[in-house]
Amino acid sequence: MVDIYHQVGVKTYVNNVYKALTTLDSLSNWWTYTTGNTREGGVLSFHFGEHKVEMTIIELVPDRTVRWRCTVDSGEWKDTYLTFKLLETPEQVFVNFSHTGWAAQTELCSHCNTKWAVFLLSLKDYLEKGKGKPFPDDIHINHIDF
Amino acid sequence: MVDIYHQVGVKTYVNNVYKALTTLDSLSNWWTYTTGNTREGGVLSFHFGEHKVEMTIIELVPDRTVRWRCTVDSGEWKDTYLTFKLLETPEQVFVNFSHTGWAAQTELCSHCNTKWAVFLLSLKDYLEKGKGKPFPDDIHINHIDF
Repeated sequence: MVDIYHQVGVKTYVNNVYKALTTLDSLSNWWTYTTGNTREGGVLSFHFGEHKVEMTIIELVPDRTVRWRCTVDSGEWKDTYLTFKLLETPEQVFVNFSHTGWAAQTELCSHCNTKWAVFLLSLKDYLEKGKGKPFPDDIHINHIDF
Repeated sequence: MVDIYHQVGVKTYVNNVYKALTTLDSLSNWWTYTTGNTREGGVLSFHFGEHKVEMTIIELVPDRTVRWRCTVDSGEWKDTYLTFKLLETPEQVFVNFSHTGWAAQTELCSHCNTKWAVFLLSLKDYLEKGKGKPFPDDIHINHIDF
């Protein structure tokens, strides 16, 4: 199994970060256009043009933890877990992110690792400056359309 | 052991990427101020203010591979390996980067993973736009001075 771990520090209230991870409008403003049911057990759909990624929300602990399981039918993301653990300090809120359970270290895994940094910095900008860079206005890390 | 893998695609000639990884001036323009001996077996010093990281160049294959071993005395980077593998395609040059051999998944490891994305995008900007964002003008991912 291959796991991805990132950390960013955001200067805001922890509840603002939690909201940015648990409301359709906020998710659409830093990652990509999001639809679905935001309650625990609900299914979220993240839209990337014609491509859609579905996540089932498996854990919500207000101001602490957001955990999704990627419940797509096939592909490398199938049954991987995405977890955001929030840690409030006097200076900032740390977002400890992981995308775990990849079957193997692949090119897509490397690509997604770099891309997660881009989107977590978009989350940070959204919370600190009021504007993120969600898909398709995200920072492109190569010259392929994905 | 924990390993970090990233990938970016750069629109330039492969030799330009190789040079950006093997000359003091270029390394200083996308990562941080660099001194030392750029030949295989040489030791490079990467300066971050008063903090210095030393790498021994263990493999240089022109236009293909650059591999360093972090030969510092202590700390989590001690004896980790940093590898840049270049793959030229008609559209772009893929930089497949890894930082392998971490003893454990730690907070520093998460931090450095996010930070490597930032510096690889700085390398991409340096090569495509003529200007990177080396330390201390790099994108800050938190509100601590490291």
